[in-house]
Amino acid sequence: MQKSDTISSLRKISVATLATALFKRGLRNQVIQGVHPLTQNGENMVGPAFTLRYMPAREDRNGLDVFLDPDHPQRKAIETCPPGSVMVIDSRKDARAASAGDILVTRLMKRGGAGIVTDGGFRDASSIGQLDMPAYHQRPSPPTNLTLHEAIEINGPIGCGDAPVFPGDIIVGDDDSVIVVPAGIAGEIALEALEMTLYENFVIERVREGASITGLYPQTDPAIKKQFNEWKSNIANRF
Amino acid sequence: MQKSDTISSLRKISVATLATALFKRGLRNQVIQGVHPLTQNGENMVGPAFTLRYMPAREDRNGLDVFLDPDHPQRKAIETCPPGSVMVIDSRKDARAASAGDILVTRLMKRGGAGIVTDGGFRDASSIGQLDMPAYHQRPSPPTNLTLHEAIEINGPIGCGDAPVFPGDIIVGDDDSVIVVPAGIAGEIALEALEMTLYENFVIERVREGASITGLYPQTDPAIKKQFNEWKSNIANRF
Amino acid sequence: MQKSDTISSLRKISVATLATALFKRGLRNQVIQGVHPLTQNGENMVGPAFTLRYMPAREDRNGLDVFLDPDHPQRKAIETCPPGSVMVIDSRKDARAASAGDILVTRLMKRGGAGIVTDGGFRDASSIGQLDMPAYHQRPSPPTNLTLHEAIEINGPIGCGDAPVFPGDIIVGDDDSVIVVPAGIAGEIALEALEMTLYENFVIERVREGASITGLYPQTDPAIKKQFNEWKSNIANRF
Amino acid sequence: MQKSDTISSLRKISVATLATALFKRGLRNQVIQGVHPLTQNGENMVGPAFTLRYMPAREDRNGLDVFLDPDHPQRKAIETCPPGSVMVIDSRKDARAASAGDILVTRLMKRGGAGIVTDGGFRDASSIGQLDMPAYHQRPSPPTNLTLHEAIEINGPIGCGDAPVFPGDIIVGDDDSVIVVPAGIAGEIALEALEMTLYENFVIERVREGASITGLYPQTDPAIKKQFNEWKSNIANRF
Amino acid sequence: MQKSDTISSLRKISVATLATALFKRGLRNQVIQGVHPLTQNGENMVGPAFTLRYMPAREDRNGLDVFLDPDHPQRKAIETCPPGSVMVIDSRKDARAASAGDILVTRLMKRGGAGIVTDGGFRDASSIGQLDMPAYHQRPSPPTNLTLHEAIEINGPIGCGDAPVFPGDIIVGDDDSVIVVPAGIAGEIALEALEMTLYENFVIERVREGASITGLYPQTDPAIKKQFNEWKSNIANRF
Amino acid sequence: MQKSDTISSLRKISVATLATALFKRGLRNQVIQGVHPLTQNGENMVGPAFTLRYMPAREDRNGLDVFLDPDHPQRKAIETCPPGSVMVIDSRKDARAASAGDILVTRLMKRGGAGIVTDGGFRDASSIGQLDMPAYHQRPSPPTNLTLHEAIEINGPIGCGDAPVFPGDIIVGDDDSVIVVPAGIAGEIALEALEMTLYENFVIERVREGASITGLYPQTDPAIKKQFNEWKSNIANRF
Repeated sequence: MQKSDTISSLRKISVATLATALFKRGLRNQVIQGVHPLTQNGENMVGPAFTLRYMPAREDRNGLDVFLDPDHPQRKAIETCPPGSVMVIDSRKDARAASAGDILVTRLMKRGGAGIVTDGGFRDASSIGQLDMPAYHQRPSPPTNLTLHEAIEINGPIGCGDAPVFPGDIIVGDDDSVIVVPAGIAGEIALEALEMTLYENFVIERVREGASITGLYPQTDPAIKKQFNEWKSNIANRF
Repeated sequence: MQKSDTISSLRKISVATLATALFKRGLRNQVIQGVHPLTQNGENMVGPAFTLRYMPAREDRNGLDVFLDPDHPQRKAIETCPPGSVMVIDSRKDARAASAGDILVTRLMKRGGAGIVTDGGFRDASSIGQLDMPAYHQRPSPPTNLTLHEAIEINGPIGCGDAPVFPGDIIVGDDDSVIVVPAGIAGEIALEALEMTLYENFVIERVREGASITGLYPQTDPAIKKQFNEWKSNIANRF
Repeated sequence: MQKSDTISSLRKISVATLATALFKRGLRNQVIQGVHPLTQNGENMVGPAFTLRYMPAREDRNGLDVFLDPDHPQRKAIETCPPGSVMVIDSRKDARAASAGDILVTRLMKRGGAGIVTDGGFRDASSIGQLDMPAYHQRPSPPTNLTLHEAIEINGPIGCGDAPVFPGDIIVGDDDSVIVVPAGIAGEIALEALEMTLYENFVIERVREGASITGLYPQTDPAIKKQFNEWKSNIANRF
Repeated sequence: MQKSDTISSLRKISVATLATALFKRGLRNQVIQGVHPLTQNGENMVGPAFTLRYMPAREDRNGLDVFLDPDHPQRKAIETCPPGSVMVIDSRKDARAASAGDILVTRLMKRGGAGIVTDGGFRDASSIGQLDMPAYHQRPSPPTNLTLHEAIEINGPIGCGDAPVFPGDIIVGDDDSVIVVPAGIAGEIALEALEMTLYENFVIERVREGASITGLYPQTDPAIKKQFNEWKSNIANRF
Repeated sequence: MQKSDTISSLRKISVATLATALFKRGLRNQVIQGVHPLTQNGENMVGPAFTLRYMPAREDRNGLDVFLDPDHPQRKAIETCPPGSVMVIDSRKDARAASAGDILVTRLMKRGGAGIVTDGGFRDASSIGQLDMPAYHQRPSPPTNLTLHEAIEINGPIGCGDAPVFPGDIIVGDDDSVIVVPAGIAGEIALEALEMTLYENFVIERVREGASITGLYPQTDPAIKKQFNEWKSNIANRF
Repeated sequence: MQKSDTISSLRKISVATLATALFKRGLRNQVIQGVHPLTQNGENMVGPAFTLRYMPAREDRNGLDVFLDPDHPQRKAIETCPPGSVMVIDSRKDARAASAGDILVTRLMKRGGAGIVTDGGFRDASSIGQLDMPAYHQRPSPPTNLTLHEAIEINGPIGCGDAPVFPGDIIVGDDDSVIVVPAGIAGEIALEALEMTLYENFVIERVREGASITGLYPQTDPAIKKQFNEWKSNIANRF
């Protein structure tokens, strides 16, 4: 699968289905725990991870004047994140001070960012929620990042919400949550999860019609397999 | 009071008022702490509890193939929960993996379930929030339940959100929260709370008109008692 | 700056900007952590703090009959909070029982209260969210306050969400959070934050037009200073 | 019972037995949760509570120079705590900064204090543990109290480890934990708990001899009542 | 391996080594998190699990009089736990009330119990720590179990400290912690971990002599394999 | 002050005194929160920080075979930590799996390490506590680090227990806790804290003799200044 096809497939797959596909391969901790979208719009965020790591702030290194330096890692990260990427921030799950605010997130959007995720919180969260780029966090947090966080590394391996994130891993977010798909298996996971999604769509239609889940979910009844194949060929030109 | 009358009365009473009625009898821990409705629609969820208990998952017992067994407790619970009941799930307050997803919850709805509550989280939460059956949880959680939870017992006594739940207890949920009314006193609690609700409705009208709460809430002024009785007879054919 | 001007200026400033203005003066813990508005309406809550402190409830002192006393501190606080003030409640961050309910909060609103904040939870939260007065809490909490809280002191110094609150401090809440501006510096903070807000508005316009943040945020490029001054004179009669 | 007899009786009773005696009267939250003695020496700490309340520190009010004021509440509390009293500190369960250090605790000891309890932490904890006065806390905490705590009130009602504490309540600590016995019932609780302790001592002797707990604990077998009475008269001149 | 051999082997193996042996088989959550021994004596606790499950207490079902019933599950569990077994209690990780006290734990010891573990806390902890039977908990907790816990099930599957525990699983505790070895693989785990222990003993001797861990831990250098085999034959008649 | 003098001075100063010296310079978060020594021996651990950072483990990258690589960061860190240094490990405050075990810690000791600190937990903790090198952690944790942690970076800037740690910062641990003294000010902090320690020693002697803290702590009475100077010259040849 080409990378662009992978990205495009992942737009149609829920984080829950991806979590199950990864679970099959023994990966149990890829969901970024404790984050939610600032706004639910029914569309997926998808893109390779570009990371930023915060460490605890030491007061003498984190006065407001540090931002006079155009190479300050927080600002530089925003200005160098490649278009199409999702910025993922390791804030040590500490939402008592902000990870970023609406000016930086707007700039990221204008530069073509595909989204932003922190396991801490955003300031100006209600403004960020109105932007045309998805953002995920734990809770709104007005204090400047300097209060507790020092941006220390751009695009290294990090933890975010207890999940491991390596630069280039494919980040997928839906209306519920965010998951990290390891770069090396993103294509095969996308393919498999697409097939799973198709079957789940079939199942949910049957269940809405009144079918029992026995034999249907998971599929153990050969008659259902046949029904599914028919259903699939019927929708082939729709989906 | 007949059971059907009890259920019907409880549809009109807030969880807060029920909490006070239970507090009067010395029951202080009946609210399921830390859960909220996936969607607020202004209507109460009411029904007897049908329970499911999860224990921590041991990996060798919780591969995806366990669902091939139609008697797997999670699936069996969904297929045997009596119509009109509320399924209450003890997930040990751990929302890092799902308690259930939209297929099972849809099936429960189709079978006539009155609602579902977990002190963990649902996967496919945004879909479940659109169903025509109330659901309450802590937060969305995409990983399959097998990641952390093994369904181990159907319809035994459990804890949910630090509240004790016995099968058959009457579960009431409103736009804020969920409470457990012990089966043996559900009728008398409903009656008493209905009367309390009436008085609170009277009070809130007075307060909106500018009345002080002194003498009114709680009622200590005999003049107010008289006003309330008049008000009550006036609304009698409306309520 | 006159107090009424201060209040009026603070209506136009975000909690995030105030947090930065206070950070400049070495005040790092003035945001009330872990609270959010019951309803987002895009307007600020502003007013001097009038406080109420809860301590843990001892059962023999906290039966329902305590409310027969019109001088019970919770009720008295509501009936004596000056018009224009924000009631701030120290609930020890414990949301397992309510800080107040819709009757008391409605009464506070009718008496001219500017808002209410607790680091615990409100019962009847969905009703309170529909009132024409802002309210902030941690999460809905149906059990009566008597279950865990005893109102013990009116208008003394308290902690709320880990922030220090002295009576008369100016409380500002927006769609994201709440901050405590010490009374003695509220005027100068308002002035300074108003100027910061102006510049942030200018910045966000530039960023939306595609400008880089380098040199712009913070302003280090003299050309940008000039642009800002022009922009400011252009909007002078609008703002 | 005279107050001095009460104090003296409480020296022989475990916190666990007192907790049960209070539970019988409906008081369920009198144990100070989450604290332990710095040193276990097998003796009880007993004395009336003298309290100190901390609120969150605002940086501009809490520089080191505040201690130049001999009336600073932390210092004044130490210098005015009556001999025989237990100082109980409400640190909002926050042990990230100290409640006090070895100099102040030594001074309290020299002035005749009966002990000290905080729901935060002490600095110089290993030194305090060697003093000849019991101290209880959550964990060692080296940062000066000014970092996070401002001493704001002496001898008012407080919460400590989620327990309500009123000045004059009798505080009892053993090798495990600390409990708050309300002043008004301390005498009767001491009497009752002394009798319970006697019976528990009898029981533990029987259990060590191999007796079953059935009929013995609680006592439901009349034969055991007789044995107990004999045992009691035998030990009367020893105990 | 015979069951008695398994038990006897497990007395010589650390919980850490067992955790690694289980990790090799994909079992990652078998350590009971957050518990420690009341007393460290350098010896292992080993025995099959006999379980007790607590649910949240409802006040009307949990007065002190419930213990008049000799079949109350807490008391019955103590009187029926088979000699040689370890009692494991699911207290929902809630140490705010006791799981058991010294009378019951003494009785368990007299009946031949091999030990007791709770993910809550014991009352009379300092007495229990002096008994001749190992006990593990989270922290001392004086309030009677009735305050928060109702004993509801004897010897069913439970969670304890986030680990799954089935009756008959082999429980091993050392001076640091406790682990659950699934019954079906206890023999093979014991054998394998014994061999691992032998090698670790060899390694630690080498490291104390100044050897680098490279090639030694894990063993990748064939020369070291040879040394180990010699060392092993030398100690064979000692170990 | 020479670096060796700094180290040697810091051996005589408590973490609490250092925390106050840093507080005077506006550094409020340098104590590593939530850690304690495995064994208390009354001596300080002092040395420059050599760091190791863990990120969350992804299962496919963290099988036991990774240790076959002699350059695995955890093993390499141990084999390259300079003699005299303190290894400080960022385990994201997660003690559910080990940061290291007795073999690696013994090796570090043999290579001349000055100590080891993690904000997680050690396996084989009771053995590590008997080594002749200080170790600090949160709690014992038997599971292999691979269960949850992947060692990802050696000697970069990290957070440990919410404190910022840069390689080369001077780490000081006493019987209570651990603090991070920034490298650039370690000399001056040592000098100042030594003087403070001297005065505190003087104060504690006075307090033990019965002196009030008023005028003495802090010193505001000129007579006391004189006494202190005399005391200091008397002890000069002892200290």
